[in-house]
Amino acid sequence: MFKEIIENVKGETPLVHCITNTVTMNDCANAILAVNGSPIMADDEFEVEEITSLCKSLVINIGTLNQRTIASMIKAGKKANQLGHPVILDPVGAGASHLRTEIAQQLLSEVQFSVIKGNVSEIKTIAQGSGQTKGVDVAAGDMVNLGNINSYIEFAKELSQKTGAVIVMSGVIDIIADATQAYTIHNGCQEMARITGTGCMLGAIMGAYAGANSNCILEAVTCAVAIMGYSGELARDKIMKKNAGTGSFRVYLIDYLSQMTHDLLERGIKIEKQ
Amino acid sequence: MFKEIIENVKGETPLVHCITNTVTMNDCANAILAVNGSPIMADDEFEVEEITSLCKSLVINIGTLNQRTIASMIKAGKKANQLGHPVILDPVGAGASHLRTEIAQQLLSEVQFSVIKGNVSEIKTIAQGSGQTKGVDVAAGDMVNLGNINSYIEFAKELSQKTGAVIVMSGVIDIIADATQAYTIHNGCQEMARITGTGCMLGAIMGAYAGANSNCILEAVTCAVAIMGYSGELARDKIMKKNAGTGSFRVYLIDYLSQMTHDLLERGIKIEKQ
Amino acid sequence: MFKEIIENVKGETPLVHCITNTVTMNDCANAILAVNGSPIMADDEFEVEEITSLCKSLVINIGTLNQRTIASMIKAGKKANQLGHPVILDPVGAGASHLRTEIAQQLLSEVQFSVIKGNVSEIKTIAQGSGQTKGVDVAAGDMVNLGNINSYIEFAKELSQKTGAVIVMSGVIDIIADATQAYTIHNGCQEMARITGTGCMLGAIMGAYAGANSNCILEAVTCAVAIMGYSGELARDKIMKKNAGTGSFRVYLIDYLSQMTHDLLERGIKIEKQ
Repeated sequence: MFKEIIENVKGETPLVHCITNTVTMNDCANAILAVNGSPIMADDEFEVEEITSLCKSLVINIGTLNQRTIASMIKAGKKANQLGHPVILDPVGAGASHLRTEIAQQLLSEVQFSVIKGNVSEIKTIAQGSGQTKGVDVAAGDMVNLGNINSYIEFAKELSQKTGAVIVMSGVIDIIADATQAYTIHNGCQEMARITGTGCMLGAIMGAYAGANSNCILEAVTCAVAIMGYSGELARDKIMKKNAGTGSFRVYLIDYLSQMTHDLLERGIKIEKQ
Repeated sequence: MFKEIIENVKGETPLVHCITNTVTMNDCANAILAVNGSPIMADDEFEVEEITSLCKSLVINIGTLNQRTIASMIKAGKKANQLGHPVILDPVGAGASHLRTEIAQQLLSEVQFSVIKGNVSEIKTIAQGSGQTKGVDVAAGDMVNLGNINSYIEFAKELSQKTGAVIVMSGVIDIIADATQAYTIHNGCQEMARITGTGCMLGAIMGAYAGANSNCILEAVTCAVAIMGYSGELARDKIMKKNAGTGSFRVYLIDYLSQMTHDLLERGIKIEKQ
Repeated sequence: MFKEIIENVKGETPLVHCITNTVTMNDCANAILAVNGSPIMADDEFEVEEITSLCKSLVINIGTLNQRTIASMIKAGKKANQLGHPVILDPVGAGASHLRTEIAQQLLSEVQFSVIKGNVSEIKTIAQGSGQTKGVDVAAGDMVNLGNINSYIEFAKELSQKTGAVIVMSGVIDIIADATQAYTIHNGCQEMARITGTGCMLGAIMGAYAGANSNCILEAVTCAVAIMGYSGELARDKIMKKNAGTGSFRVYLIDYLSQMTHDLLERGIKIEKQ
């Protein structure tokens, strides 16, 4: 199902503009390159409109939000909207501070996003203007499981209806939904939470997949979620075999992102259409 | 001796607020995660008080100090003091510029630190308001050895008395002292100076160890020093066996941080109570 | 031919001041350390003059240019000029936005550079005040090949004459030229474009090589180009043997930078004096 989506990224090498956090921006650039996209990180307000005009998509990640870059995010977002480029929001830590929650709301009111991607706590904050975020990780009461998944899918569809964006709720089970359809992905592993940046890298590669597949954003970002999750599983298998730790896990995760093919993905993907 | 300290970190997954430098912040986040802490890097002055309130400890590292973040450091430090959270200062490059020396002094006058951690040149600068720092590395005249170690231990104890903070002087021999007691650690290896970030990562994981063990800060940071040093030795052994270089050393260092157990540490730790 | 140049770096451990981008600064620091230099990243305008005074060379990279750091670049550059330190310019993305093109021109008018290093699109922008840069990568029409190499060499020599700087045009074939002489290097591999930071790391290690060899800048930076390219080839060979991906490539590239010797380089270097 994702053959064409993957080929479009490999064939086009979409340029992805990232306004992102300083903790994981190197990981994000390497993740985009690994999947055959081309990243450009630029956040000065005097150049973001020009830079985003050169690109196929824009990823906004508020992980190390600061006064200097807020204006850049809004300007770049508006320009990308004008040009019809997919815009991805990764509201890292929304709910952890009033600044983050307010800026996330401001971004939502001024920019039309194609995709909003976060853990359940972040997405709830986006929907409700409040949350119980524990820092940048999901709160314990916000875990998706088989017992509550249907209500989370409905919640995601409603939020998609309201925002016009595809909603991605990442977790042990990932939910990807627009207003009428949803997919769940059961890939991924615990080790992904033992390194920084897996969530940010997922947002970043969504930029590449959406940028090269702007006519089918729901499927494109679902594909990105599956690729990240399955690459994580392969990396976990490799560190287990080698008795290695989280440093090696991070290296192998990028390795598998760069080596992923449609055939390999088909062997490992655990997806359900809801 | 460190069994409970290590178990407290693994059991609690302490959230560590880092206001740190842009060179090594990714390494610091991965190091904290490796030892089972949870990092949050946030440095905008409009959110640092809220963020630090969510956390168990605060790490302030001045490695890429700039005008924007100085106010954030002070605000976060004062808030952490109010809340009784351990606050760690890593005065990277103090002595290398007047700005760094002055900001370090300002931080010391406005924030009560639980731990001050640096190489000998940096710690001397803290104590004396002057130093002979060679950039961010220790000056040649500032090496701790068996001949001068007792005077350095006395110096560290006096500085601890004066500042109220546990003093950590890192080097070939590490000294960890409060006003009355001191430990020396003889772990570590030269390869740790051939990658960036080992000092910053040590400060970062001190945040996790102190955060989960706020009733025994001296022992908690001594444990952190030993874990970092011995992980470095194990990483060195592995690159020697594989004939690999500094890129692999960095990966294996994080690997061993993530795989360290009390039993493993007991086999490698070289510690003396002074 | 490069024996003494390499030994000078290993013997002197030159301190290199980098004002560089936030995406790859960790990679740049590790690359400088790998080749036995010592990096210091400092970009606050109130300390850059002091910091650069401690160093042997200055590297200015405009990859994530912002208003705060432009003044720092100018100040540090002027100070390094006064002190006679080699100054390297890496005009990342010049041509991709008016801001970058203008700041590159401003830097050129206020600071005397010893080396200007970029891909062909960036160097053309420097020469002509215009370009057709595709983000931070070279434009398709700007590839050096055996058919056009002589005209590019002439172009580089003329630009060197005009600017007083050694010109480095990186690509499949690298050209390094001053006003009267040029070298070409045929090392390197495609995998180097599949990770972020190889260009920035090259600029960074040029700081170490030029800093320890300020009396023969042309040869020093040619040596740096060869070392980076050949390390890339060795890293590619290793990932092919291990069936690994781009994450491992990045690790091995740093490994080989740290393990490079004159004897090893002699076996792999593909250089021509033009």
